[in-house]
Amino acid sequence: MPRPAELDQLRVVLVATRNPLNLGAAARAMSNFGFLRLRVVNPYALAFREARSAVGASTLMKNAEECVTVAEAVADCALVVGTTTLRNRQRHQPLYRLEDGARRIRKAMASRRVALLFGSEKVGLSNDDLSHCHWLMHIPTREAHPSMNLGQAVAVCLYEMIRSGKAMPGTAKPAAAKAGELERLTTSLVETLSDSGYLEKGASETSRAKIRRLIRRLNLQNADGELLLGMLRQIQWKIRSRN
Amino acid sequence: MPRPAELDQLRVVLVATRNPLNLGAAARAMSNFGFLRLRVVNPYALAFREARSAVGASTLMKNAEECVTVAEAVADCALVVGTTTLRNRQRHQPLYRLEDGARRIRKAMASRRVALLFGSEKVGLSNDDLSHCHWLMHIPTREAHPSMNLGQAVAVCLYEMIRSGKAMPGTAKPAAAKAGELERLTTSLVETLSDSGYLEKGASETSRAKIRRLIRRLNLQNADGELLLGMLRQIQWKIRSRN
Repeated sequence: MPRPAELDQLRVVLVATRNPLNLGAAARAMSNFGFLRLRVVNPYALAFREARSAVGASTLMKNAEECVTVAEAVADCALVVGTTTLRNRQRHQPLYRLEDGARRIRKAMASRRVALLFGSEKVGLSNDDLSHCHWLMHIPTREAHPSMNLGQAVAVCLYEMIRSGKAMPGTAKPAAAKAGELERLTTSLVETLSDSGYLEKGASETSRAKIRRLIRRLNLQNADGELLLGMLRQIQWKIRSRN
Repeated sequence: MPRPAELDQLRVVLVATRNPLNLGAAARAMSNFGFLRLRVVNPYALAFREARSAVGASTLMKNAEECVTVAEAVADCALVVGTTTLRNRQRHQPLYRLEDGARRIRKAMASRRVALLFGSEKVGLSNDDLSHCHWLMHIPTREAHPSMNLGQAVAVCLYEMIRSGKAMPGTAKPAAAKAGELERLTTSLVETLSDSGYLEKGASETSRAKIRRLIRRLNLQNADGELLLGMLRQIQWKIRSRN
């Protein structure tokens, strides 16, 4: 079972939640299992106001951080994980069953900050939201009825995280690049590719999401992220100085 | 993971549930995880009527059996398990953590019918309800906030029941880029960095080795190696075409 300091590394990120009951339920499950850091991205204003007075986890809701974009909500996290059902979704990223994904998250929490994303009740996480993720995780539900209630999905995922398994010895890994750094790298690469003619000017959201996923697949260490950004900026300067 | 015939051995028994949303949520979680046999003991009449029209698990709700007493609801079961938080309760029966209890239930389901009892939102199972149980099970929640939402507690318990103990193979890993591809990428990046002024012309062996190691740290997939090489060549062409 993770120590409190490790639980404190997890940011539960609820994206575009509509129903105040679900916000409140998610907060309650977090409190039940000892995860106290909630971030909400663009929730329905009314839902957020109502949920703030939710029974059982009001301190947690009061401390919730409100963000405008997913990028902002995950910027200080070194690992970003999206939750998804399997339906109607092309897989661009590795997808793990909860048992396996939670094990990976626990390991990461020993040394790094982790964001765990849950999408809205109707549509889940969008492809754009998902492109911020290093990998995805799904709860092993029945094919005939895969889609879970949001509050219940949060409860099950967090339970698996604190569930007693075998102790996971953490090996010291070099610091991974944080999501904010990866996003700067994404932006810089998209610009450079536009400048060079590889992408058309004003790259489409699809191209940008494709590049974003590429960058996330690289498993960049922090120092390497900085190194690559420096290279790209020089290249960009060179191209622009000739135009 | 239990087979469908085994899942069919479990009766989820909700005792004196008040809130139709909780009844509906419990039914939905049951459907998500493949447990389709619900019994309700003495639910608030209105709650039961409203929940029957709940989205997502309406067949399950329609087939729910209504009982007047706990004794009636568990009469045909060979194992009866109660769920409880630890608060304010004298222990007269063995109490297992969910991980352990679920393992015992799964074992029993292979040959016997099992009832799993959940109490009302306010007070849980009464001492009288508990006296029908062979043993009790609790979800390992935080001492500071042990009491879970009913629908979430049902979801977590049922998840643990279908959870796979074995390590799950994740998605098949895409083919890794071969060394030859990595070396072409290295060469192209060194040239581009020289062209852009990031490296001095005629890059030293030390710089080249540094770039080579960087490329190897990226854990590149084969397709991504080709993608990056294409990008670099376009960038290089752009820079050179201006010189």
